[in-house]
Amino acid sequence: MGKKYAIGIDYGSLSGRAVLVDVENGAELASSVYEYPHEVMYEYLPDGATKLGDDWALQHPQDYLDVLKHTVPDVIKQSEVDKNDIIGLGIDFTACTVLPVKSDGTPLCFMDEYKSNPHAYVKLWKHHAAQKYANKLNEIAEKSDENFLPRYGGKISSEWMIPKVWQIAEEAPEIYDAMDKFIEAADWVVWQLTGRETRNSCTAGYKALWSKSEGFPSKDFFKSLHPKLENFVDEKIGCEITPIGSKAGEITPEMAKLTGLKEGTAVAVANVDAHVALPAVGVTEAGKMLMIIGTSTCDILLGNEEKIVPGMCGVVEDGVIPGFQGYEAGQSCVGDHFDWFVKTSVPESYYREAKALGMNIHQLLRTKAGRKKPGETGLVALDWWNGNRSVLVDVDLTGMILGMTLLTRPEDIYRALIEATAYGTRMIVETFRAGGVPITELYAAGGIAQKDSFMMQIYADVMNMNIKIAESKQAGALGSAMFGAVAAGSAAGGYDDIKDCAKKMGRVMTRYYKPIPENVEIYNELYAEYKQLHDYFGRGGNDVMKRLKNIKKSVKE
Amino acid sequence: MGKKYAIGIDYGSLSGRAVLVDVENGAELASSVYEYPHEVMYEYLPDGATKLGDDWALQHPQDYLDVLKHTVPDVIKQSEVDKNDIIGLGIDFTACTVLPVKSDGTPLCFMDEYKSNPHAYVKLWKHHAAQKYANKLNEIAEKSDENFLPRYGGKISSEWMIPKVWQIAEEAPEIYDAMDKFIEAADWVVWQLTGRETRNSCTAGYKALWSKSEGFPSKDFFKSLHPKLENFVDEKIGCEITPIGSKAGEITPEMAKLTGLKEGTAVAVANVDAHVALPAVGVTEAGKMLMIIGTSTCDILLGNEEKIVPGMCGVVEDGVIPGFQGYEAGQSCVGDHFDWFVKTSVPESYYREAKALGMNIHQLLRTKAGRKKPGETGLVALDWWNGNRSVLVDVDLTGMILGMTLLTRPEDIYRALIEATAYGTRMIVETFRAGGVPITELYAAGGIAQKDSFMMQIYADVMNMNIKIAESKQAGALGSAMFGAVAAGSAAGGYDDIKDCAKKMGRVMTRYYKPIPENVEIYNELYAEYKQLHDYFGRGGNDVMKRLKNIKKSVKE
Repeated sequence: MGKKYAIGIDYGSLSGRAVLVDVENGAELASSVYEYPHEVMYEYLPDGATKLGDDWALQHPQDYLDVLKHTVPDVIKQSEVDKNDIIGLGIDFTACTVLPVKSDGTPLCFMDEYKSNPHAYVKLWKHHAAQKYANKLNEIAEKSDENFLPRYGGKISSEWMIPKVWQIAEEAPEIYDAMDKFIEAADWVVWQLTGRETRNSCTAGYKALWSKSEGFPSKDFFKSLHPKLENFVDEKIGCEITPIGSKAGEITPEMAKLTGLKEGTAVAVANVDAHVALPAVGVTEAGKMLMIIGTSTCDILLGNEEKIVPGMCGVVEDGVIPGFQGYEAGQSCVGDHFDWFVKTSVPESYYREAKALGMNIHQLLRTKAGRKKPGETGLVALDWWNGNRSVLVDVDLTGMILGMTLLTRPEDIYRALIEATAYGTRMIVETFRAGGVPITELYAAGGIAQKDSFMMQIYADVMNMNIKIAESKQAGALGSAMFGAVAAGSAAGGYDDIKDCAKKMGRVMTRYYKPIPENVEIYNELYAEYKQLHDYFGRGGNDVMKRLKNIKKSVKE
Repeated sequence: MGKKYAIGIDYGSLSGRAVLVDVENGAELASSVYEYPHEVMYEYLPDGATKLGDDWALQHPQDYLDVLKHTVPDVIKQSEVDKNDIIGLGIDFTACTVLPVKSDGTPLCFMDEYKSNPHAYVKLWKHHAAQKYANKLNEIAEKSDENFLPRYGGKISSEWMIPKVWQIAEEAPEIYDAMDKFIEAADWVVWQLTGRETRNSCTAGYKALWSKSEGFPSKDFFKSLHPKLENFVDEKIGCEITPIGSKAGEITPEMAKLTGLKEGTAVAVANVDAHVALPAVGVTEAGKMLMIIGTSTCDILLGNEEKIVPGMCGVVEDGVIPGFQGYEAGQSCVGDHFDWFVKTSVPESYYREAKALGMNIHQLLRTKAGRKKPGETGLVALDWWNGNRSVLVDVDLTGMILGMTLLTRPEDIYRALIEATAYGTRMIVETFRAGGVPITELYAAGGIAQKDSFMMQIYADVMNMNIKIAESKQAGALGSAMFGAVAAGSAAGGYDDIKDCAKKMGRVMTRYYKPIPENVEIYNELYAEYKQLHDYFGRGGNDVMKRLKNIKKSVKE
């Protein structure tokens, strides 16, 4: 049959990246990035006149189409592959990133009538202006003891779909009424590619409170939020949920023209950026947790049964790999800690030394910190500079560091921050295990995982587990291409099943991190200290962090 | 009678400073500093060959005599005062700074026989190599329920006299046997000036476990430490204790020649650097606490009754002002926190900004921190970077800071450190009050108190008390000159009593710090948070700081 290829597109917060890979082994032949011309709109609409409120974050859907137009032809050209050998396409997206559209898929913001209305645009995942609706939703759901709540660790985020649509219903009823559909950008792009609306089980499950066995929350619940929302599911979603790993449709003639792909090329149901990375490291079985480590960390894990684990971000059947319960957890601040530290707390002499040694500041701090043994800094920190996502689900928690003396040096604190994020991950792993979800292997993806062997060794030591590292630098895009190959099917030279596909196309590095027994022993002691402080400050022993936040708020008013 | 003058000499850790003042009003006419040629000997004896152990800190007594030789003639010359109008001299010293001498006052280290023996030299206050003897002493004293222990907050410091002499008895018995006297450098200098040995009640009380009503600890106790020490008091001290405020003697003909003073000039009994500053701010009554704020803070307070207050450094009758109980407490790390911070944790951009604005880095950080209201940083810290002296008396406690977010800036942490030291002082004040020792007024001396109005306002707000600031930059030397004027007596144009003297010569600045009611209210809330953390980490709620220190120690071995 000859060599076959698939394309994956990873839509991030500022750009979209396409990769073209060999379907036989996942090898990357070409990649191409297109930065969104409208970036993220925090302050003004594209007219430059309509001002946005605090905590808004919008995007323009035209940018997503432009990603297709620029990157797909580019990877085809770079790789010199025949378009007839490209059998499938998959995409993954940030989530929950949602927009209001007409029944034919036209975004309201494309229409003259609505283009000056901020609510007509895409609300990016990090649009936080629906916080008050999330708070009210949580209050109501808790009172009426809604079934869905425990599946999300007891709390719905303001980043998710229902708070966002509630904001529209309340603040822009004309937009609510005018839209025929409220849809994830992921699903909207697939709709544009195929001419056919699908809704993927990943975003529906993790962001829209849907479950395979129970469906969406009840009409009564939606009504109790806002009268307009009573028939939200029927009126504004009105589409079956399709499991991850399915084929959504085929490239339309228009899209074939725009992208240079062959008409009829298979397109996979859309996916979420973190979740799609799991098969890219070859994992399609229960018990193996993937940590995608960046400014924050997202943990993805498969299980055979639905268990309610405190503080997870969600459990969704078919949410990651069909046939499994997909568990998600996370740490809201990982790389951001180290960034904060080098920007605010490192003296110039260190920057000079780094320069003289031809290192960046992170490398220098890791080198210096690496000269000490575990426990030698005398420090322990709580990794809550940006709150705690799992397992405490509490944005009002703040950072803590303890053990400083007059001999404490910047590298000591840097190391303590790394260790704190590792303890936070161990807390997640132990909570899953205690909740009846086994974790037997650890995988890591993302830039930090690939570059920072000092940190990864600490993670292995703290967790007392081997850690395997994704081989691809674009685990998201590779995962999407894999789902594209599955959408094409084996008859076309792809795969019939993501499990078979993952065995061939998923890849981890040969070298992996193994725990060092003497370090494990000391980190067990240090983790016990972390845990005690974690529980004291995080579970009501001393709510000083919240009280300080309240005082801060009250004096600023 | 014409104008009369007095000289005070303040012996610090690196230099001695003399001031010549007007006896009528304390006005400073001249001052002169002489730096010790031998500085502090940490590594080698003056021979450059004899190596010292870890934590040693020695001085050379010749340096103290050279201070007299250089500074006294210099202030006389500068001020153009007739030596016949200089009626008295007083000195104050670091303590416990002790040396072994022969019966005629000759230091053992002046003798060829002993000059290569480290134990023959002056053990400076910060000689910490007697820690193991202090530990054993505390254990024994606690077991045998010694009366003196509660007077020192339950713990004797390794910096004090008995651990230091025990070290000699154990490690250099030949020096112990050869010395006829073991004496505070303060008393030794007065002996050299007057030809007459006296022992002042301040060092005897605060550093040598003496009390006016009970004397020294028993022979049995000394014997239980080491057989050689059984008769330590009789054999090596053997001199009455003289109350502060007394005349020690008069300038000898040799010293008149050396210093340019008139033979027969009155010399006061020696004193300690912090304690002598109290009358220099005009305080000779119960209830007024003086904070001498520097790298660390020493608090001095008079009371009418002996009360056992937990965690104070000592209570000594006649220890500060005759007729009163003198209380001492302290914070082991104050200015040192800010120094640590600017050296380890402030980015270059701040240094550049400070330079552009013509400020030093502390001024810039205070200016930035001052733009925020109390509570606005959202931070609270425990000021234990160098342990806690009062009221927990625990060198194994370490620093903590809590409340950080990704928006926390260096000035926020700087402010939190200042506030933490203020909370630490409030903890001392409240503990004294709870122990039945009233505190009605606050005074502050030292460079930080005089220069840092931002910090002093925070102290006033946190304490909810006015704070008056010493006018003299050399409160120690001024206090010593005042005791010199008292030693001279009113017949010679001085004073008969330190109280009368303090009314005339003691001085505070006209401008003082008053609490700002709205700040007081917020700081009451924040102090409650500090107190809860202080007790949790400092009183056994969670001994994580000690466990981390132990882990650190064990992995370094």
